[in-house]
Amino acid sequence: MQLVGDDLSKVNHAILDRMDSRAPLIPQLAGHIIASGGKRLRPMLTLACSRLCGYVGERQIGLAAAVEFIHTASLLHDDVVDESDLRRGDATANVLWGNQPSVLVGDFLFSRAFQIMVADGSLEVLRVLANASAVIAEGEVMQLETMNNVEIPEEKYLEVISAKTAALFAAACRIGAVIAGRGYVEEDALESFGRNLGIAFQLIDDTLDYSAQQATFGKTVGDDFREGKVTLPVLLAFRRGDDEARAFWRRCIGDGKQNDGDLDRAITYLHQHDALHDSIERARHYGAMARDGLGIFPDGEAKRALTDVVDFCIERAY
Amino acid sequence: MQLVGDDLSKVNHAILDRMDSRAPLIPQLAGHIIASGGKRLRPMLTLACSRLCGYVGERQIGLAAAVEFIHTASLLHDDVVDESDLRRGDATANVLWGNQPSVLVGDFLFSRAFQIMVADGSLEVLRVLANASAVIAEGEVMQLETMNNVEIPEEKYLEVISAKTAALFAAACRIGAVIAGRGYVEEDALESFGRNLGIAFQLIDDTLDYSAQQATFGKTVGDDFREGKVTLPVLLAFRRGDDEARAFWRRCIGDGKQNDGDLDRAITYLHQHDALHDSIERARHYGAMARDGLGIFPDGEAKRALTDVVDFCIERAY
Repeated sequence: MQLVGDDLSKVNHAILDRMDSRAPLIPQLAGHIIASGGKRLRPMLTLACSRLCGYVGERQIGLAAAVEFIHTASLLHDDVVDESDLRRGDATANVLWGNQPSVLVGDFLFSRAFQIMVADGSLEVLRVLANASAVIAEGEVMQLETMNNVEIPEEKYLEVISAKTAALFAAACRIGAVIAGRGYVEEDALESFGRNLGIAFQLIDDTLDYSAQQATFGKTVGDDFREGKVTLPVLLAFRRGDDEARAFWRRCIGDGKQNDGDLDRAITYLHQHDALHDSIERARHYGAMARDGLGIFPDGEAKRALTDVVDFCIERAY
Repeated sequence: MQLVGDDLSKVNHAILDRMDSRAPLIPQLAGHIIASGGKRLRPMLTLACSRLCGYVGERQIGLAAAVEFIHTASLLHDDVVDESDLRRGDATANVLWGNQPSVLVGDFLFSRAFQIMVADGSLEVLRVLANASAVIAEGEVMQLETMNNVEIPEEKYLEVISAKTAALFAAACRIGAVIAGRGYVEEDALESFGRNLGIAFQLIDDTLDYSAQQATFGKTVGDDFREGKVTLPVLLAFRRGDDEARAFWRRCIGDGKQNDGDLDRAITYLHQHDALHDSIERARHYGAMARDGLGIFPDGEAKRALTDVVDFCIERAY
């Protein structure tokens, strides 16, 4: 945050500026979700990675805003798809304005992101973010296809989160190297850093859904459980459980039949089988890969900041 | 159709090829809507306009597919937003698969359209279609904002349909000139042609919703009425009606309170006040502007084909 603070306030400015429209509902609704206190993690990655690559200029500002627009568009569509009521403790846009504008404002922000990239003028940046956008949508569809299926292999779950979450982290990082003109080795290294960071981030997110500390993030414990989302903690508890536990997971997640007390019972099973602990261990593994991805870059402020991001993403589980 | 028949089958090939994904639901759902017999009007415009500009090459194929993907993505999202059950006589994707995949597959097709444009490599084409996409979303949001309001001025209605429908027609035509490298005069002329054609097309579409011939298009008469959509026929009938008629429109469209027999009564009012007839007259006006937009191009097969498209769009009202 310290490293990129000035740039980040310019990004916030660009975001406000570019979400304007002659349709007043667009800035209203987009402003609600953008202002509702996201961490701006993805745009920060673009800022810090361009710094790490020695880039001097202003192109990182607009592109970081474009990354945040793509992220915001996918949050808006996610909340419609998941029928979520709360995001970071605030009522979601779909609750306040209905599904219809949430879908359409998402489309607008997504298009606007591409307008910003076109204005930037790099076909390579456009390629990276168009690919990421397609992969994100594929990941979301794959998540729907595996919804309620507690028997998928861990690899399938990793494929889903690599696509729906980590692809944008990877792209946000890669474009930092692209605008610095550093060539494929650095681009690939930052993409790898971002992808592994994104996987670690999502794994921690999935454990937070079942742990009390999470309340501090303004989310409700058990959202994923109620929605029947198959996440790594559930996959581990299912595999490690006895017949009774498996029947429980099949009923609650597979068939979506939940009673009072089921969330508590789920959390008990998760602890019994170290499913939360070991999900965090898995996250540590990807965090370590992310850190090593930075190995080819010289030590310094920017590299330390990016390493801190890895630590932050994992430590928030404690 | 004759002029661009060969190209169009290549476009259909490209469409099938590029909607493939490792998430099997994507080609299933996308295939349903793409195969369900759209007219391929927008991609045909790209093909015919590139021909009109003397373009020789294959770039029009991919870009026409990209245009159709953007159109399909917006149809998928529209059907979710409008809660439609039928499209061209077939059950909509949201009915067959639910809203969730319809939103996500729309996002995928939209991203894929940008991937195709990036592969084509023209920043100018990207600019034109990114702008059009943002304007389409704005138009859809403006339509939501004016929903149920029978007292909006005709200009506001025109602004909505210029954005939600005509912007993509305009862009589809313009990129035909862009790839031919014909410069801004020709680009602007084709954009103007496309925009006016698109407005005429939507005006006719809006009258078809209230006329029996429409059954031949596989749509249900009265969809717009039931959804409380404010279209030009309604605006004219409201303005030209007496107090009783206005109260009727306010109740049915404004408050969405409809009873058996209301659709018949609406159609009676529309005929009484020549609202359908005069909406078609308005469409003729935009059709004439579209035809004149082609004035700077030499006569020939391509120009005749594009003029035929204008005639077709208007004649289908009879």
